[in-house]
Amino acid sequence: MVKQLRAARTRQALVHAAAEIFAEDGYALSSLPAISRRAGVSAGALHFHFPSKDALAVEVEGAARRTIEHMVADRRPSAASALHLLITVTRELLVTVATDAVVRAGFKLSVDPSRKNGMGFGCWWRTWVCEQLVQAQHQGELAEGVAPDRVAAVIVAATVGFEVLGAADRDRISPQHVEQFWSLVLPQLAAHDSEFAGAVLSDS
Amino acid sequence: MVKQLRAARTRQALVHAAAEIFAEDGYALSSLPAISRRAGVSAGALHFHFPSKDALAVEVEGAARRTIEHMVADRRPSAASALHLLITVTRELLVTVATDAVVRAGFKLSVDPSRKNGMGFGCWWRTWVCEQLVQAQHQGELAEGVAPDRVAAVIVAATVGFEVLGAADRDRISPQHVEQFWSLVLPQLAAHDSEFAGAVLSDS
Repeated sequence: MVKQLRAARTRQALVHAAAEIFAEDGYALSSLPAISRRAGVSAGALHFHFPSKDALAVEVEGAARRTIEHMVADRRPSAASALHLLITVTRELLVTVATDAVVRAGFKLSVDPSRKNGMGFGCWWRTWVCEQLVQAQHQGELAEGVAPDRVAAVIVAATVGFEVLGAADRDRISPQHVEQFWSLVLPQLAAHDSEFAGAVLSDS
Repeated sequence: MVKQLRAARTRQALVHAAAEIFAEDGYALSSLPAISRRAGVSAGALHFHFPSKDALAVEVEGAARRTIEHMVADRRPSAASALHLLITVTRELLVTVATDAVVRAGFKLSVDPSRKNGMGFGCWWRTWVCEQLVQAQHQGELAEGVAPDRVAAVIVAATVGFEVLGAADRDRISPQHVEQFWSLVLPQLAAHDSEFAGAVLSDS
């Protein structure tokens, strides 16, 4: 039991160290010796848990995605609507990228040209945003004439941009910038009788 | 004279080949032998023109920035106002990233974690967007209460997102998505008596 616990801790330390190094140096330049050194783990122990750098990246990408999925699941019960949930999650995502090294690495790997066979966090995000907008439309929350797929592309681009800038310089991009995005966009996006119509965003 | 012309052509072929490879594989994985092979140039000729991969990247980044600066200068005379120019340039930028390998590489290098001492195309772009908005405010084009620096962060994030997605998959992101962004944002951003107020964007 103690042995299992120790193995789990070692694994976790390796994932965390790998995430930090992937996010700092990019996938191509990250080396297994640097990762085991940062984790305070022997090269042998690293190879016992992860046979390759790709295996470590797959683990980091999976952990990042699970964190975001949990965050979405956590926020869902208190969200008044699909549009509400979308706004909350875009804001939380930026906070999570800034504070959680694994999520930051998962995001950075998804736009890293040297990570060829990534798990596509970006793909999951695009699909999720589009689903929320389609649901918002069914719930009558979108203004007439708003096409969920086209608006999804704008929201995905803005959030990807915020994450890229935020991951590069955590001091420059804050949740206030995400607020600003929504206060610019919502008056056109939301139905005129919805809670968001014409309103400046406060606590969504 | 013939010799000079040939040298200029070789240099151009190297910059173009380097841009393609940087954009495809990222900075870290791009190798000088692959670049000279793609350019159809000997390793010796490559080293004569560029002593290192860093020197090649600096040249690609500089060429990308000059192309964008020329594009901005070209559009300026026909732009009715600062806001008009900003909209036109954000749209053109996406087209240029899709069609010009050097600009695409310049942009990708600016968000590549393995390119540590890049020339900061992103920094130039942020400054330019902010300047245009400050000028638009002086020209009375912005709605009351709009803060140029905060809106600049949103516009920069959206354009960075469009470029990242567009550079990764040129078929998925089109200038229509940039139009969509502006039609969502302009009604809040532009002064109510400006040409953009409440209007769906057509030919700006």
